[in-house]
Amino acid sequence: MMEIQPGALLKTINSPADLKKLNREELQQVTNELRQYIIDVVSVYGGHFGASLGVVELTVALHYIFNTPYDQLVWDVGHQAYGHKILTGRRDNFSTNRKYHGLSGFPKRSESEYDTFGVGHSSTSISAALGMAIAAKYKGEKDRKAVAIIGDGAMTAGLAFEGMNHAGVADTDLLIILNDNCMSIDPNVGALKEYLTDITTSVTYNKFKDDIWKALGKLPVGKHFTREMASKIEHSIKSFVSKSSNLFESLNLRYFGPIDGHNLTKLVDTLSDLKNIPGPKLLHIITTKGKGYALAEKDQTKWHAPGLFDKITGEIYKKRYETPQPPKYQDVFGKTIIELAEKNEKIFGITPAMPSGSSLKFMMDEMPDRAIDVGISEQHAVTLSAGMATQGLRVFCNIYSSFMQRAYDQVIHDVAIQNLPVVFCLDRAGLVGEDGPTHHGAYDIAFMRCIPNMIVSAPMNESELRSLMYTAQLESTKNPFVIRYPRGEGVMPEWKTEMKEIKIGTGRKLKDGKDVAILSLGHPGNFAATAARELKTEGLNVAHYDMRFAKPLDETLLHEAFNKFEKIITVEDGTVVGGFGSAVVEFMTKHNYSATIKMLGIPDSIVEHGTLKELHNECHYDAKAIADAVREMMKDEVVVPELR
Amino acid sequence: MMEIQPGALLKTINSPADLKKLNREELQQVTNELRQYIIDVVSVYGGHFGASLGVVELTVALHYIFNTPYDQLVWDVGHQAYGHKILTGRRDNFSTNRKYHGLSGFPKRSESEYDTFGVGHSSTSISAALGMAIAAKYKGEKDRKAVAIIGDGAMTAGLAFEGMNHAGVADTDLLIILNDNCMSIDPNVGALKEYLTDITTSVTYNKFKDDIWKALGKLPVGKHFTREMASKIEHSIKSFVSKSSNLFESLNLRYFGPIDGHNLTKLVDTLSDLKNIPGPKLLHIITTKGKGYALAEKDQTKWHAPGLFDKITGEIYKKRYETPQPPKYQDVFGKTIIELAEKNEKIFGITPAMPSGSSLKFMMDEMPDRAIDVGISEQHAVTLSAGMATQGLRVFCNIYSSFMQRAYDQVIHDVAIQNLPVVFCLDRAGLVGEDGPTHHGAYDIAFMRCIPNMIVSAPMNESELRSLMYTAQLESTKNPFVIRYPRGEGVMPEWKTEMKEIKIGTGRKLKDGKDVAILSLGHPGNFAATAARELKTEGLNVAHYDMRFAKPLDETLLHEAFNKFEKIITVEDGTVVGGFGSAVVEFMTKHNYSATIKMLGIPDSIVEHGTLKELHNECHYDAKAIADAVREMMKDEVVVPELR
Repeated sequence: MMEIQPGALLKTINSPADLKKLNREELQQVTNELRQYIIDVVSVYGGHFGASLGVVELTVALHYIFNTPYDQLVWDVGHQAYGHKILTGRRDNFSTNRKYHGLSGFPKRSESEYDTFGVGHSSTSISAALGMAIAAKYKGEKDRKAVAIIGDGAMTAGLAFEGMNHAGVADTDLLIILNDNCMSIDPNVGALKEYLTDITTSVTYNKFKDDIWKALGKLPVGKHFTREMASKIEHSIKSFVSKSSNLFESLNLRYFGPIDGHNLTKLVDTLSDLKNIPGPKLLHIITTKGKGYALAEKDQTKWHAPGLFDKITGEIYKKRYETPQPPKYQDVFGKTIIELAEKNEKIFGITPAMPSGSSLKFMMDEMPDRAIDVGISEQHAVTLSAGMATQGLRVFCNIYSSFMQRAYDQVIHDVAIQNLPVVFCLDRAGLVGEDGPTHHGAYDIAFMRCIPNMIVSAPMNESELRSLMYTAQLESTKNPFVIRYPRGEGVMPEWKTEMKEIKIGTGRKLKDGKDVAILSLGHPGNFAATAARELKTEGLNVAHYDMRFAKPLDETLLHEAFNKFEKIITVEDGTVVGGFGSAVVEFMTKHNYSATIKMLGIPDSIVEHGTLKELHNECHYDAKAIADAVREMMKDEVVVPELR
Repeated sequence: MMEIQPGALLKTINSPADLKKLNREELQQVTNELRQYIIDVVSVYGGHFGASLGVVELTVALHYIFNTPYDQLVWDVGHQAYGHKILTGRRDNFSTNRKYHGLSGFPKRSESEYDTFGVGHSSTSISAALGMAIAAKYKGEKDRKAVAIIGDGAMTAGLAFEGMNHAGVADTDLLIILNDNCMSIDPNVGALKEYLTDITTSVTYNKFKDDIWKALGKLPVGKHFTREMASKIEHSIKSFVSKSSNLFESLNLRYFGPIDGHNLTKLVDTLSDLKNIPGPKLLHIITTKGKGYALAEKDQTKWHAPGLFDKITGEIYKKRYETPQPPKYQDVFGKTIIELAEKNEKIFGITPAMPSGSSLKFMMDEMPDRAIDVGISEQHAVTLSAGMATQGLRVFCNIYSSFMQRAYDQVIHDVAIQNLPVVFCLDRAGLVGEDGPTHHGAYDIAFMRCIPNMIVSAPMNESELRSLMYTAQLESTKNPFVIRYPRGEGVMPEWKTEMKEIKIGTGRKLKDGKDVAILSLGHPGNFAATAARELKTEGLNVAHYDMRFAKPLDETLLHEAFNKFEKIITVEDGTVVGGFGSAVVEFMTKHNYSATIKMLGIPDSIVEHGTLKELHNECHYDAKAIADAVREMMKDEVVVPELR
């Protein structure tokens, strides 16, 4: 492995205590070296990029001014915390970032006492930091500070608003730093964003000042109305505008800023002042995502997490293949929804801040009046979709599986109870790899199938995804319809197959057999198919059913399987507690079958980060694990190879 | 049944079309009669009270001005929609409100085309109405209006903010009516509430005006600075203050008001104007909850849903009993947390807007610095609790089961992944009766037990609740801990028993037996015990285990049960899909047992409203149903009564 050297000063910073010994000039040098080190490491080892570059100055200033880890810094989302990790004792193993058994890509309590709160999903920081501030107050720790650092994108989520609404009346010394870079992963949207741009450019204030001067009309400056008086009026207006006309001040948070978040001196001075101002307050800083790396500043979405790249030329390395590769599931979704929408004018697409990640951006570009990015607001995305569904529209609401947890009540209360035919496309279902536990889509089968009226499906490949999407938008489909599929590539280079209606609640028998039946749901069906082929060479002849639906189950196939087999293996990329396997076992119980069943899937524990391959192996539902499970089940049986 | 007569004019109003024929004076008379009719019916038949009285004028004005049902009215929460129901064809069967097979206490799409969106939980109206407005725009229905009517309490929930953030940039004609009565069920809290009070009393504006005049100093009015000029300045200031200094204007919603929500003429005129103003806008009206019934105006929490009462004297009827009755579970919680907190200084209580309903108000009164109502903000309540838990506090976060759906991601992401020992007391778990499907706590066992690290428990009675609470706050308890219990009374008049540690994951064998084993979770264990006693008289000797924990399961008891019994019945007041029964079946499968299992609980369908007794009967898990299930299982067996 290539050794990456930090700069001369950064090399000496083993904790914030070392930072505090420096003078302002040296501090600036550390900042520069920190930025360079992030570029050096991420270009070679990968990870999130733009967000951390944007807060290098802020990170240094915070650890310089605040008494960390006694003072509590809560980084919202946390993919911008690379600088924080490097300054807090994790510089030398930072190259293990996001690797299996290495550092987490997000702050994590078990990793460091400087990581006060585990994050990954956005908009939790204000509530968490407020909880810390309330605890400090209760415990009489008067000198202990709590700081939430939150982006303007994260600020649009309801949770952030709920936190501010409480913070404004909670009488603690909470400091909220609004890191305003106009971006989520994609450009930020919504009225709040417009508003922030507005205060930043002071249009409001300037407009108001103009109005006043117009009202004063031809008033001559002279004996009775002096320049001094005019200036007093202006001062009064300005102080009013900056205090009372402010959304945050409306919520009783003292508002400071906006200031340049890349001006280290200004940041240090401001934080130093704010540290001693009691009560809830908000500092608005303006930063540029990707700051200091020109290409990243220019195309911020692309450089959010670019993969490996040549830091000199800016070339992002792409794997090259000799043969056509299967597409990502997300792209199959993104292209197929356009195909469907061209024929069915009732189709709409909604995503909460994931146009790139979901590939809904293709539709947003082609059909801008029919595809909407609503910003980080999963709850709104679902209830909005429900409202549209009442008017006969067929909305494809695309939300990552783990983010759908944010809109669970809306799915039950606004969609399922009313049985509205909203289509939920849950991308990133199953294990997601390097993003780790906060992002694994481990629970959706369990939490969706317990809801009445829901259809819960998972395609085994691209063609199946297309046909499920086709089926979900048919007029004859009357129920809410979940289609869950994993992060990354499918298996079909020639993916653009003809779409066919799939009868709801029907699976497919992919292979007959006699020893063991494998019932798989979704993409891991491919692992099962591989296992089945391998077992065949050993004389083990397993049947394989791609069940497609966790709800409703294909009872015909299940009756066949339970009548024919005494040994059954279920495979899913979801938790084995209450998931698809449990549904099969519930069926068995209800119909009084008896069989030996082995359930493979995500275990009932927090699965950490790593590559998908490493994690599938760890969780024992890759092809090898499935084959091993069959062998284990068959170990006491005498296997007589079939004659051909 | 007593026949209740509507007033002379109200009697003629069979739909909003009839309303539109009236002149202003008649309209006022209808309003008065509508208020009286609500008082007459609710006092005799029960239901929500204060909220509907507060919006009588608004309801009449809306249906008078808007073209319902073509125009879409979305009532937030919906317990204030009684007037709406009475005016839209449901006057004569309004006495069936909240009764089994009668009208729903909330708007419901299947009940009337005037009910555009089913509600029950708060804060959905803006998103839903925006969805309708976007659909209307897309379909070219330019004359079609969408109106969301939302209270100031509901406005604090993140979902409402997310909806506004989108509405502000969505370019539709959405009208949001903010019905500001300073109340949720309990008095509203938070910075937004302070802010609304602020604009209402115009303190901000008045303060600003004073500042300006102070700045103008001794400026004499005379030749150069005329009264006209001064007035122009004031006008400009005022228009600025009302436009730009406004939180809603910050979100690009045009702000109108505040106006008196009980002035019918003013409301009719204002709505008439606003109907023709394009774009997203918000009308702020001030109302009094309980308006027109003096006692209800005075004690708004008590009269939110008072039960039956004498409308003349205001006496609220209470059932009188000869013997001591069991307390409500919520009161056992409310009193026990104080007992525990007196000994354990780490204990805190948090509730999102349910201090009365959860009985946390007892602690808020006695220990105001250790019990917090955070307003309608379930997500914040959970993440706040997590933040406090990082500081070593032991937070009891009390949220109704169905409202916990709102904070599902926070439970997973902020609590469970970090394994923080937050205690979740889920009141109203299981069927809730008259509030119906939006409020049934049907899913929590399924959606909680699939999360790693969670402990999921349910007490069978008051004593068990106390001991579970005691156990949950012990230093040795390291995990998040769910305690779910139902609405209403327990079974122990002498409830204040000594608290004992319960070993986590252990149940109790209440009764040995030989024919069938009943495994119950939580309160329905009492139904099972009744069934067991009854069956004994028939010579059927069932064993009964109170399992206490859905997770972790008591494996010792389960091994005993599966070794000894071939017939097992599980009983829970949660969905049978993925719930406690499924956990038992998963255990059976894992350990290769075989048994005939019957799972009793809430079925996989939307259960409507009714009394608890009616619904338990309908869902087949009351004592009779349990006994019947045993009889059915035993019908082919020869039962030999045991000798004594």
